[in-house]
Amino acid sequence: MNIKFVGHTISYLLIMEALLMLPSAVIAIVDQDGTARCFAAAMVLLLLAAALLHRLCRRNTSQQYYAQEGFVTVSLAWVFLSCFGALPFVFSGQIPSFIDALFETVSGFTTTGASILTNVESLSRSLLFWRSFTHWLGGMGILVFMLAIVPMGKESGYSLHLLRAESPGPSVSKLTPRMGNTAKILYGLYLLMTAACLILYLLGGMPVFEAFCHAFGTAGTGGFGVLNDSMGSYSPYIQWVTTIFMALFGINFTVYFLLILREYCEVLMDEELRLYLGIMVASTLLITWDILPLYHTLPESLRYAAFQVSSIMTTTGYSTADFTLWPAFSQMILLTLMILGASAGSTGGGLKIARVLLLLKTLRRNIYQTLRPHSVQAIIINRRPMDEQIIQNTNSYLSAYCILNLVAMLLISLDEFPFATNVSAVLACFNNIGPGLELAGPACNFSFFSPLSKIVLTVAMLLGRLEIFPLLSMLSRRSWNRSL
Amino acid sequence: MNIKFVGHTISYLLIMEALLMLPSAVIAIVDQDGTARCFAAAMVLLLLAAALLHRLCRRNTSQQYYAQEGFVTVSLAWVFLSCFGALPFVFSGQIPSFIDALFETVSGFTTTGASILTNVESLSRSLLFWRSFTHWLGGMGILVFMLAIVPMGKESGYSLHLLRAESPGPSVSKLTPRMGNTAKILYGLYLLMTAACLILYLLGGMPVFEAFCHAFGTAGTGGFGVLNDSMGSYSPYIQWVTTIFMALFGINFTVYFLLILREYCEVLMDEELRLYLGIMVASTLLITWDILPLYHTLPESLRYAAFQVSSIMTTTGYSTADFTLWPAFSQMILLTLMILGASAGSTGGGLKIARVLLLLKTLRRNIYQTLRPHSVQAIIINRRPMDEQIIQNTNSYLSAYCILNLVAMLLISLDEFPFATNVSAVLACFNNIGPGLELAGPACNFSFFSPLSKIVLTVAMLLGRLEIFPLLSMLSRRSWNRSL
Repeated sequence: MNIKFVGHTISYLLIMEALLMLPSAVIAIVDQDGTARCFAAAMVLLLLAAALLHRLCRRNTSQQYYAQEGFVTVSLAWVFLSCFGALPFVFSGQIPSFIDALFETVSGFTTTGASILTNVESLSRSLLFWRSFTHWLGGMGILVFMLAIVPMGKESGYSLHLLRAESPGPSVSKLTPRMGNTAKILYGLYLLMTAACLILYLLGGMPVFEAFCHAFGTAGTGGFGVLNDSMGSYSPYIQWVTTIFMALFGINFTVYFLLILREYCEVLMDEELRLYLGIMVASTLLITWDILPLYHTLPESLRYAAFQVSSIMTTTGYSTADFTLWPAFSQMILLTLMILGASAGSTGGGLKIARVLLLLKTLRRNIYQTLRPHSVQAIIINRRPMDEQIIQNTNSYLSAYCILNLVAMLLISLDEFPFATNVSAVLACFNNIGPGLELAGPACNFSFFSPLSKIVLTVAMLLGRLEIFPLLSMLSRRSWNRSL
Repeated sequence: MNIKFVGHTISYLLIMEALLMLPSAVIAIVDQDGTARCFAAAMVLLLLAAALLHRLCRRNTSQQYYAQEGFVTVSLAWVFLSCFGALPFVFSGQIPSFIDALFETVSGFTTTGASILTNVESLSRSLLFWRSFTHWLGGMGILVFMLAIVPMGKESGYSLHLLRAESPGPSVSKLTPRMGNTAKILYGLYLLMTAACLILYLLGGMPVFEAFCHAFGTAGTGGFGVLNDSMGSYSPYIQWVTTIFMALFGINFTVYFLLILREYCEVLMDEELRLYLGIMVASTLLITWDILPLYHTLPESLRYAAFQVSSIMTTTGYSTADFTLWPAFSQMILLTLMILGASAGSTGGGLKIARVLLLLKTLRRNIYQTLRPHSVQAIIINRRPMDEQIIQNTNSYLSAYCILNLVAMLLISLDEFPFATNVSAVLACFNNIGPGLELAGPACNFSFFSPLSKIVLTVAMLLGRLEIFPLLSMLSRRSWNRSL
């Protein structure tokens, strides 16, 4: 393990985070809400820590970099950035408990959107902005952002490992041979689409500040709002814009790159995209039919169903209706969507549709192989055979996902809340959605959980966002063996 | 597909089932409860069906037999035997609806123990006996029973496929080179242990009829009782006997075979056994501590905890306390045990500890391989490397398990019952346990579900008992291709 190199990279990230706090600090100065000095203090601490790390970990370019360095860098970076990102909340006294502030910040960076705030509207605008901005950064990835702006020179292998460790999905697409360019293209597309969403919000009459915060939340598929009722009080136009943009940000960004290259045929044949849109449309129709008696007219019922489906499947977590009051069938569909999640390579969370597709195809192959033991078949996705290592990893991912979810549910149940609350709170955090069912539903928040449960849920959000393996590999003794 | 051969085998099984109804018919005659003619009618129908099948499917020994024939035989056999086994209930008018009677019979054969009866004690003794006897038959396997008593001659490959398709667990141990002998040894051990359980019940003062029924339920890890409060009104001695025997029947029967061969070292080093006992002891201690405030004294608390843990982990489903009234932490532990299940090659259900062990080891290997892409490692269990095909199948089993459970939960939720009821009812049926949580808890029954839900749960029980693949492979077009 080249621990010095890891520290070196993290020192850059800390400087970057300090700079990224500037917009919020500016709002604090304009509003004169007294949080400017809190941001200033956090920024000074960030720069001090960066300087210290930089001094301790002088770069050593003679060594080789493996996947290990990528995993450890990404894991440690997310932990450091979350801890420092929580400081403005603590310093301002608006979220006095560090555990609560950390929960809120991790919920932001991981684009979960679960909140411990009982009254969102009481928070200063500067803090609200920072909270929503973390969604935007976490959505596409903080290290990807760094790769896009800091030239990494010769260490392209290291860049690939970083991108692989931070990007969601079973495999990462190298859009261009150089990782720095791939990161630039991804962030370029992300910026453009966020701008489009922002403009449509402004055209719908949303106030500028709210439009910025909601555009960040929609783009990162995060779900932090600035109003207590999330999106419920906005016009149908804004709700439809949000529905569509959440769905768009849940699509693999490679698809947009292919669209730019005019590879329309490739896009139309993309199996993950077809399954993603198919599930989304089918769920919307089923729920529309199921909740029709509640909302009387078809357009209204369709709007509520489409919004909630888009929000839950892309793991955003905005809501326009309290779906815990919906029939059990609709709730169960939403719970299933929570687990399936969005596409790989999007800003959404969950298991990812690409994984579900791979698991289904592996299942079919194995049944066939049990019947005909000597047959050899490759698994074909998008007309390309999949690497067996990726198939194995995907299957192991499911095991790890099930085991860790069960462990988290066990720990949460020590709080003695009802079954549906425990199960859905863990699923909502692990899949980076936000609201769950019953006590953890969209009309509620996570403030009532004990500190232990909040820590468990914070870890669950990180495990979900970084897709388990990077964090689990940190527990392996081999990661810390100097000789390797 | 050699469909004639499949029909031929099933015709034998139907004759066997007719004979196995004899003891219940004798009880009916002794009791003069009027159900004797119902059993007689069912037996006549069974023999007629057997004769018809026998005539239609003349044996053709020139063909090869593949895993396919084994899968199809086992799946069809279970469906046929369940449909005919339900007839005495329907004919007697004591369970007038065929769907209800089928649910009850499948619940018996699959050793689930979920019941649609609101008042068990109102059932005739002959029907109660038949109901419990199905547990005993289904526990070790009906086809294994046939293999033990009918000489299969040269078709040993076919016997192996039958045993493999019906026995629970990721791989089947051939205790002896000849399958017929393996089946004889398994049933011999099973018979001996059931007899031991029966004698201990009788020594504890349990009435003879109840002792028989409960010994069947314990041995098959089924869970059908003859009293409305399951095991709650029996003495602590009987409760402890049940606790210990449930745990014993949840152990891989290979272990007992090794004990007879005096391979003590091999038994002590058995990784599945160690994990199974470890989880059982740990869960019992945690629940004892958690429910101590409810039961005041440590011995009482330990007795309740041990009974429920042993009952749920071996997927039996007897109960001495309504655990839905226990703290959420204890309930969550029990729900986890429901999913883990008993050992492979035992009479219990669930995922099986051997699978959990394999999944954990695969996960560890994959994390290591992600860090060191060029390493090659075999997975070692009990000092033997595992076959990669078994590892792949186990991983696919988990995918299929998750997907099918989710689908079943979705369908059940159309009934609009609470979340915990739906989720736990499906888990209780799929893992062949019996009682779930809330409305489907141990103090309740499954009578309130709609016919659709009952059919879904019936299929779930069969999928769980036959471990998914045999039934799923029936859906494959290739299974029905004559040319193969």
